[in-house]
Amino acid sequence: MLYSKFFIPTLRENPQGAECVSHRFLLRGGYLYMMLSGIYAYLPLGLKVLKKVSDIVRRHMNDKGAIELVTSYLQPLEIWEKTGRDSELGEVMIKVKDRKGRDLCLGPTNEEQITEVVSHYVTSYKQLPLILYQIQTKFRDETRPRYGLMRSCEFVMKDAYSFDENEDGLEESYRKMLDAYSKIFKECGLDFIVVEADPGVMGGSISHEFMAPAEIGEDILFYCSNCNLYFRDISRCKKCGMPLKEKRTIEIGHVFKLGDKYSKSLEATFLDRSNQRKYFIMGCYGIGVSRIISAVIEQNHDNKGIIWPSSLAPFEVDLIIVDIDNQSLFAQGLELEGILQDLGLTVLVDDRPEQVGVKFNDAYLIGSPYILILGKKYLQDKKYELEVRATKEKFNFNKEELINFFKNVN
Amino acid sequence: MLYSKFFIPTLRENPQGAECVSHRFLLRGGYLYMMLSGIYAYLPLGLKVLKKVSDIVRRHMNDKGAIELVTSYLQPLEIWEKTGRDSELGEVMIKVKDRKGRDLCLGPTNEEQITEVVSHYVTSYKQLPLILYQIQTKFRDETRPRYGLMRSCEFVMKDAYSFDENEDGLEESYRKMLDAYSKIFKECGLDFIVVEADPGVMGGSISHEFMAPAEIGEDILFYCSNCNLYFRDISRCKKCGMPLKEKRTIEIGHVFKLGDKYSKSLEATFLDRSNQRKYFIMGCYGIGVSRIISAVIEQNHDNKGIIWPSSLAPFEVDLIIVDIDNQSLFAQGLELEGILQDLGLTVLVDDRPEQVGVKFNDAYLIGSPYILILGKKYLQDKKYELEVRATKEKFNFNKEELINFFKNVN
Repeated sequence: MLYSKFFIPTLRENPQGAECVSHRFLLRGGYLYMMLSGIYAYLPLGLKVLKKVSDIVRRHMNDKGAIELVTSYLQPLEIWEKTGRDSELGEVMIKVKDRKGRDLCLGPTNEEQITEVVSHYVTSYKQLPLILYQIQTKFRDETRPRYGLMRSCEFVMKDAYSFDENEDGLEESYRKMLDAYSKIFKECGLDFIVVEADPGVMGGSISHEFMAPAEIGEDILFYCSNCNLYFRDISRCKKCGMPLKEKRTIEIGHVFKLGDKYSKSLEATFLDRSNQRKYFIMGCYGIGVSRIISAVIEQNHDNKGIIWPSSLAPFEVDLIIVDIDNQSLFAQGLELEGILQDLGLTVLVDDRPEQVGVKFNDAYLIGSPYILILGKKYLQDKKYELEVRATKEKFNFNKEELINFFKNVN
Repeated sequence: MLYSKFFIPTLRENPQGAECVSHRFLLRGGYLYMMLSGIYAYLPLGLKVLKKVSDIVRRHMNDKGAIELVTSYLQPLEIWEKTGRDSELGEVMIKVKDRKGRDLCLGPTNEEQITEVVSHYVTSYKQLPLILYQIQTKFRDETRPRYGLMRSCEFVMKDAYSFDENEDGLEESYRKMLDAYSKIFKECGLDFIVVEADPGVMGGSISHEFMAPAEIGEDILFYCSNCNLYFRDISRCKKCGMPLKEKRTIEIGHVFKLGDKYSKSLEATFLDRSNQRKYFIMGCYGIGVSRIISAVIEQNHDNKGIIWPSSLAPFEVDLIIVDIDNQSLFAQGLELEGILQDLGLTVLVDDRPEQVGVKFNDAYLIGSPYILILGKKYLQDKKYELEVRATKEKFNFNKEELINFFKNVN
């Protein structure tokens, strides 16, 4: 992709209202545009990252046999009244009345809706177990939206729902999701921990949270640096007895054993093996897809910009052509783009008629894991300068060495 | 994909409220679930088709250098007041007030929002031309939603916006989009025509509509069967003078030359070559992505069900294993699935413990272009029975002939 043919409107100054590192770099790097506080448009780079996260989530969910669908954005308020969650969520839920006078809301989550769908079609234990999921924008009227994608009024969530015959089935579905979640966060390059948590407004018996340690985190855990263990609300380590330190974390995923809470309220039943009517035993499993983007940046940056893991980078290589008026250099840049693409890499070719300093600043800000420079050293010795953002290593490679390097990292 | 591990809840009876062929087959075939009149969830099969249409649209837009982003769903009402379209659209627009008292609406389209984004970042003619697009759910509070995805309150649209220095630039962008649109609808397997149209509420000078002839169409054109030409509002053919016949059509795409209508109202300007401040010259380009699904079914079905073109089929081959208790037959089915996948085909293996009649009915209803039967003829003579839905041809192939057949159709 040529930079000049793409749309990456980076900003030189820190934008007003940017409240933390990830928010600042997402706005400055041309990833997001703020429509209103808590409401963002994904600019082309931001959309690329969102798609990469979504694809990782999708692949691991499919691997566990979960099946993708997508529910409507507008939901009848009626189903929320049945579970009593309309009043529990209160003003967080965005409600509208349509011209026919129907009471609707914009989905803040989808337990009610999915239970209705499953209850409509699934009548027998033979159709179970079933795990359905979607990757969809949700809406919450936050009192205080902040930190960009961390706490916004519109956000992208992966929400999954399992339906089983009994508690043993739920246990198996739950284990599958726990395993998928670990794989997803690992592949996204996140440092994270899993803690048992309070089910809260979701109801049900057991829940686990996936937490990414970060300064801006809004959840406080207690950490034993001795045993490298986290606890929710005690003052001393259960293992070694040492006092604990407060540590802030970002909630990136949350899984719940719901049991029959929702199926009971919504009268969602099936016929079991002995032809008895039974309530579905449910679990629900959420991942903050857009929030992952913020969490990854909070954990992976320096003072110049984002340092993406390859798995999420909008472009893995930022190829800077120092002098675009030099035709042989320009031609070499395009040839190199082709070679790297054949190795499976995505390449942003900075072909703008800008000072090289501007190009470097943007490359650091945008955060491709590899910066490749085609300039003086190429003209003199046919050498390619490569900078690895994460390790700060610099190499001067000939073409063969460069290709071998990328063959080995991929 | 094994049918037993997927979620395709077909219905035997015609569901209440199904108003036309496409609506009926989408509901009966397990493609859609109706949450409320005009509001649908995409079940797994429906989502697969939606993604296939979206991917075709995306590829052709990218080919023309258009750049993908995604705006927010909630928009500030203020920008609509500036163009006066909030009152023009009236009750069609779904409006909400958030807890801070901000007036918001759910986007029925995005001219205002995109113009604001571009105006924020693009300051010079050097950054032009620019075509931005998105594939996103839109909202309209229809007086009378009907025909399933044809006229719904939530629908998926591809909306693109071009920004140029002058009318010549707009002409070029407009031509590119016209060309992309023809390629998109052709690849979707649609029979369609292009007509000059009235810009209406969108404003601007010139517009073209892409129309798919169908009985349930809500737009009436006048057709000369002699010259195979369409006209909008005359009674006799402009070419041969013969009287015209009314023909109903579905609007699947609409492109507009907007000029400076929106950039003027929103004060969106750039500096031109002589350093003068000028309004962007704009075009906008819409495709009803979800509506294409209905239009294709209206044009491609028989009385048993949908007949998908391969480009949109959720699965290209429906492989019916007649007797799943016969282990050699079952093993052969899985082997065959692998062979067909290696040829680039998507395969639904009907491994359900159902009567063969049920499997055939579902296969016809769901509408894979190829039905492959593994039954008596395989056990007797190692022959695979293949039925081509569109042509009703039936073949008895040995393995080599079968592979050659699919090599040639793909």
